[in-house]
Amino acid sequence: MTHDLDACARVAEAAADVAAAVIRPFFRERIGITRKGDSSPVTAADRAAEQAIRAVLAERFPDHGVIGEEFGAERADRSFQWVLDPIDGTKSFITGRPCFTTLIALLDRGIPVLGLINQPITGERWLGLAGRETRFTAPAGYGAPPPGSWARTREGVVLAEAQLSCTTLDLFTPETRPRWERLAARVGQVTWGGDAYAHGLLALGGVDLIAETTYKIWDWAALVPVIEGAGGVITDWNGAALRPGADGSVLAAGSAALHGAALGVLAEA
Amino acid sequence: MTHDLDACARVAEAAADVAAAVIRPFFRERIGITRKGDSSPVTAADRAAEQAIRAVLAERFPDHGVIGEEFGAERADRSFQWVLDPIDGTKSFITGRPCFTTLIALLDRGIPVLGLINQPITGERWLGLAGRETRFTAPAGYGAPPPGSWARTREGVVLAEAQLSCTTLDLFTPETRPRWERLAARVGQVTWGGDAYAHGLLALGGVDLIAETTYKIWDWAALVPVIEGAGGVITDWNGAALRPGADGSVLAAGSAALHGAALGVLAEA
Repeated sequence: MTHDLDACARVAEAAADVAAAVIRPFFRERIGITRKGDSSPVTAADRAAEQAIRAVLAERFPDHGVIGEEFGAERADRSFQWVLDPIDGTKSFITGRPCFTTLIALLDRGIPVLGLINQPITGERWLGLAGRETRFTAPAGYGAPPPGSWARTREGVVLAEAQLSCTTLDLFTPETRPRWERLAARVGQVTWGGDAYAHGLLALGGVDLIAETTYKIWDWAALVPVIEGAGGVITDWNGAALRPGADGSVLAAGSAALHGAALGVLAEA
Repeated sequence: MTHDLDACARVAEAAADVAAAVIRPFFRERIGITRKGDSSPVTAADRAAEQAIRAVLAERFPDHGVIGEEFGAERADRSFQWVLDPIDGTKSFITGRPCFTTLIALLDRGIPVLGLINQPITGERWLGLAGRETRFTAPAGYGAPPPGSWARTREGVVLAEAQLSCTTLDLFTPETRPRWERLAARVGQVTWGGDAYAHGLLALGGVDLIAETTYKIWDWAALVPVIEGAGGVITDWNGAALRPGADGSVLAAGSAALHGAALGVLAEA
């Protein structure tokens, strides 16, 4: 089994295309919603899209492991693990916002080496590969860079000017919420709603900072190569790299300096 | 001066097209942001888009009044008043979310008779005309109804199942926030981010309930025909119709029953 990142990227893109084709007919249709054990919503679109991605991966990489939000882990002992969130932002999807995404990542012995963020309705797609610059492709009008140039975060932004994005206050605990609020009080502006889509905006320089918690591995794995390849930094709230077993806290910033400043505020007693 | 609503709608659509053409080149470009007296952000895109809309209206309806967010009121004594918000959701626009909108409304002696919500990037457009059903048009994939059918809210939704959307907690005061939180605790789900776009989603049945405050006339005028024409109800938090001089509170719901239930919760002592 070779580790040909370009071949993996082609398969990830094909899987994202298939998932998008599965998801699109459900968008803004009045489909049933069920609640999972943690009360988060799931729809037939989530399940059908994950099955479609798994089918593409099983055909091309039958020896790789797969971990998905809806159907769990298969071949968990393998070095290469695909990590899937068929619909990140299911709440956003349910309300008809075109800001949910499909996340596909590949871990090589626990290190995220491929991350793909795909928006099935707008056609926006971010592809990050370890050690390379992040590619953003989209239809005309979505600010995609010309072919051969790359997604870049906004540099030279100080905390007092930073655009902080947050999905919802519901994800914080009594311990983490005051720390987040301290950070929010120091930035230039806070905007709401986002999920992984906001991390895509960070890779484009529209958002500068995201500090959230309770991310599962399928929520963060795809973000790491995308953000790092765009010039950003993403770790947990202690500054540690995101790896299997991470505590679910995520701090993403457009630059190392901004990341350091935010870490400092989060750590204040 | 006749009151030909179809002619007005054609001009409103032409003005929205021109505004979209002005706004699109600014989207996701790193443009300057200035702060207005109330600290809300404004960009060159807001100003240029409002000027473009005013130019279209001045050409076709030189006798009508115009009230716009960026350039104030002209001919305020006239019966017909166009009400403009070139970019509703400037914060969303700045971060690169394709969920800001251009709002164009026409008031006839204070009564909103035409409302247009336009998203320049996705191409989604809602058009409401007094006494008629709301038209939603969009590219394939955005759930637009077939030609000749109409946008409709979701009916038969009880409070405990309702999708409540909120732009940001920042807009509430110490008096209004606990009332909103009481409502939020009673609904099925809360999602964040939205501005007028969320009202468009309400007209499509993805969102069921929006309770916000501090709306200016250019924030609410276009919403009234769109929501009423889709089967919804929109008033202030006391149940009064939205008219010039309104207190800025807005309660929109997908049905009269849901609206009444939400009014009751907001009024509880």
